[in-house]
Amino acid sequence: MRSQALKSMPMKVSGHAPLDIGVLRTHLGYFLRRLQVEIFRDFIKSLSEFDVRPAQFSVLVLIGANPGRSQAEIGKALNIERARLAKMLNELERRRWVRRRSAVNDGRSHSLHLTPFGAEKLAQIKALAAIHERRLAARLGKDRRQQLLSLLQEFG
Amino acid sequence: MRSQALKSMPMKVSGHAPLDIGVLRTHLGYFLRRLQVEIFRDFIKSLSEFDVRPAQFSVLVLIGANPGRSQAEIGKALNIERARLAKMLNELERRRWVRRRSAVNDGRSHSLHLTPFGAEKLAQIKALAAIHERRLAARLGKDRRQQLLSLLQEFG
Repeated sequence: MRSQALKSMPMKVSGHAPLDIGVLRTHLGYFLRRLQVEIFRDFIKSLSEFDVRPAQFSVLVLIGANPGRSQAEIGKALNIERARLAKMLNELERRRWVRRRSAVNDGRSHSLHLTPFGAEKLAQIKALAAIHERRLAARLGKDRRQQLLSLLQEFG
Repeated sequence: MRSQALKSMPMKVSGHAPLDIGVLRTHLGYFLRRLQVEIFRDFIKSLSEFDVRPAQFSVLVLIGANPGRSQAEIGKALNIERARLAKMLNELERRRWVRRRSAVNDGRSHSLHLTPFGAEKLAQIKALAAIHERRLAARLGKDRRQQLLSLLQEFG
C-alpha cells in the first residue's frame, strides 16, 4: 500500500527534473541535429589553431582531392550555395591557401587549386581532424561510430 | 598490353565526372551534416504552411510536454543559446502560440505555456511533422531509419 501511494504521488517539481522530449523522440532529424552540433563544436575547437570550420575543411579537402575543378562543381558536391561558397573562397584566397584560375576555354569559369602553402596547411589540418575523429570514436564507442558511419555513407 | 595502357590513361576530364570526397569519407560529422541538411529542408517544406522551422518545432513540443518550465530549462534541454531562444519566444508570443508567465517565487524567471490556440496549432503541426517523418522512412528505408534512430537515441 505504501509503495502504491508513493508511486501515484506526483513527482517533486524541481528545476532539475529532466524534461520530457515528447514526440521529438520519434524524429530522426532531432537526434541527428543534436549529435551534429556536438560534433561540429568539437571539430571547431580541435581546429581553432587554424581557424577552420567544418564547411571550410570540406572545401579544402575537395579542392585538394580534385585539383582544377570548378567552383560550381565543388559547390554542387558539397551542397553549398553559390554566394556562400564564393565568400568562403575569398577568405581562403586571402589566406593564400587556394588559388582560382580562369579556365582556358571559358573565361567565366574558374578552376580551383590549393597553393603549396595551402596543401601544407591542409596536411596539418587533416592531422588535427583525425584526432577529433578518434576522440569522437572514444565518445561514441568505436563500433557504434562505425555502424553510424556505414549507415550514413549509404545515403551519400 | 592494350588494357594495361588504357588503365594508365588519365580519366577523361568531364564537368560531370564525380568528385572524390577524399578524407571526408572517414568523417562522421560530414555525413551527419549532409543528411541533417536534407532532412531539415524537407521538414521546412513540409511545414511551410505554418512557417515553422525545426528549432521552433522542438521548442513548441517541449513547452507542450512540460508546461510551466522555465526558459532556461527549455534552452538547456535543447542546447539553444539564451538570446536565440528569447528571440524565438518573442516570435511565438507574437503569434499567440506561447505565453510567458512570471514565476511566483522569482520575478526574473518566466514559466512557459502553450495557449489553447498554440496547442491547437501544435496538434496540426505534429500531424505534418509525422508525414515528413514517414516520407523520410520511405527515402531511407524503414529498417535503416529505425537503426539510425536507435543508434542516435543512445547519445541523447
